[in-house]
Amino acid sequence: SDSAADAVARRQDTLTKPQGSLGRLETIAAWLARWQGRDMPKLDKVKVIVFAGSHGVTAQGVSAYPSEVTVQMVANFAGGGAAINQLARIAGAELAVIPLEIERQTGDFTQEPAMDEAEFLAAVSAGYEAVGKDTDLICFGEMGIGNTTPAAAIAAALFGGGAEKWTGRGTGVDDAGLKRKMTAIDKGLALHAVSLSDPLKVAAALGGRELAAIFGATLAARRHGVPVLLDGFVCTAAVAPLARLHNAGLAHVLAAHVSAEAGHRALLEALELKPLFDLGMRLGEGSGACLAVNIVRSALECHTGMASFAEAGVSEK
Amino acid sequence: SDSAADAVARRQDTLTKPQGSLGRLETIAAWLARWQGRDMPKLDKVKVIVFAGSHGVTAQGVSAYPSEVTVQMVANFAGGGAAINQLARIAGAELAVIPLEIERQTGDFTQEPAMDEAEFLAAVSAGYEAVGKDTDLICFGEMGIGNTTPAAAIAAALFGGGAEKWTGRGTGVDDAGLKRKMTAIDKGLALHAVSLSDPLKVAAALGGRELAAIFGATLAARRHGVPVLLDGFVCTAAVAPLARLHNAGLAHVLAAHVSAEAGHRALLEALELKPLFDLGMRLGEGSGACLAVNIVRSALECHTGMASFAEAGVSEK
Repeated sequence: SDSAADAVARRQDTLTKPQGSLGRLETIAAWLARWQGRDMPKLDKVKVIVFAGSHGVTAQGVSAYPSEVTVQMVANFAGGGAAINQLARIAGAELAVIPLEIERQTGDFTQEPAMDEAEFLAAVSAGYEAVGKDTDLICFGEMGIGNTTPAAAIAAALFGGGAEKWTGRGTGVDDAGLKRKMTAIDKGLALHAVSLSDPLKVAAALGGRELAAIFGATLAARRHGVPVLLDGFVCTAAVAPLARLHNAGLAHVLAAHVSAEAGHRALLEALELKPLFDLGMRLGEGSGACLAVNIVRSALECHTGMASFAEAGVSEK
Repeated sequence: SDSAADAVARRQDTLTKPQGSLGRLETIAAWLARWQGRDMPKLDKVKVIVFAGSHGVTAQGVSAYPSEVTVQMVANFAGGGAAINQLARIAGAELAVIPLEIERQTGDFTQEPAMDEAEFLAAVSAGYEAVGKDTDLICFGEMGIGNTTPAAAIAAALFGGGAEKWTGRGTGVDDAGLKRKMTAIDKGLALHAVSLSDPLKVAAALGGRELAAIFGATLAARRHGVPVLLDGFVCTAAVAPLARLHNAGLAHVLAAHVSAEAGHRALLEALELKPLFDLGMRLGEGSGACLAVNIVRSALECHTGMASFAEAGVSEK
């Protein structure tokens, strides 16, 4: 609520530091308060949910890795061996992995819609249902070999500029693969041209199940008052339709980082989201979002734990 | 050692992620290994040391706060009420505060050297002695009302450009205060002109005791193989003479952040240090450095905890 955010800003100005000197840590505390609706926000329960999906468009040779890696990496998450397992532990966050029919690829969007309406809504619902009221902060992540292709397609559909503006190397395709990827995206944009004015139809025709789930989960977070840390290019493309559906659709979302994937910086700018850091990461899995959790924790601890000038007997200006 | 850093890079390329996709987290792991001299670095003991000093140049009206705040804030650190207390707790770092004769101001550098040789060496020694071999990572911070003035003076002395290039608002001086600050710095540069070619004489004539201690502590960290996280403008100015004394004098130092203090970005660039983040902070106390500790922990956990492609049975390109 506005009143909770205002209460945070008023308290910040009494704490033993020059006003504003904690920079974005101060606005992060206010952002937590606004969306949790509490003057003293809490971070007792922080979650990371990684959604996984398989992509028909991998048939176009758009990824550096074989598509079976999606299933193998879900097993690696379960075994604790992936980056996100380590990052969630350091962040004090509970990790859940939700595979979305990963044995069944979406449609190849160069030939047909990635999902029909029923499939799209099933994936959105799976994401929506994954988020509960009992969570204080949530990170979403994704795993899906080939999924920077639907992400770039969605960005191009919503913001224009064609494949060239939004296509990057993902997990590391070579020049020929990058060309195939751009060709596939432009083909998809042409095939689904009639759907491009409707953000939901864009997400269904050009997206993927894990992207749809992140869309649904971000909507549920808004409904339940759970602030969201946004990860990289794929996650940002997944939630971009929310901004298209409502001007303030992403107001409860804080961009953790700008990734090294080519289109991410421009997409964040188009959504007027200012990332917290740029460490050249491009892994996905929610890794960047999870790395931001301790920054948010630090912001909250300063807010709740610091003494005021009066309490500490420190002279003011 | 180079061999430890190379071992880290080799292991990173076997882990279940596209090579290089953890961005700077990969180079941070190698940096830890290089300076700790271990293939598998550790972060069992992380320390934050805040050095405090009092500044004669405050007589020139260069700060928004009265000079007694230095003593009051040292008491606030002891009481656990400052930002750095909260940030150190979240970082899992042990906090120590070392006041350096804070009841006795340095000389006003517009009238005389801030410290004579004996005073300077005593402060450098206090810093040097504060760092032990048993530390895996260290952050330095500072508290000293008025200390962005000596910091800007040191930067101007070492890199040129005069007061105008390096002077910012510190804790928040108004326009008149900013003008007084620049006047004082230019006066100090003129008075001590004969010392400006010697980085150590610059640090003594224009610096402060807490800056000298950070200089000494950073030198001790190098000697003992302890990687250093660098905080904001004052800390950066404090260690800048090391870079002037030896090309690789700051190779064991990682810049945590670029602060909102006007001269910090240019000073980091002059030292070829690339900060991890920019959150608009300008508090000092080691706050930015401490906020970076969990990023370094995350880098290490990914390095030590992730499975290799072979271990996890994940297909490579």
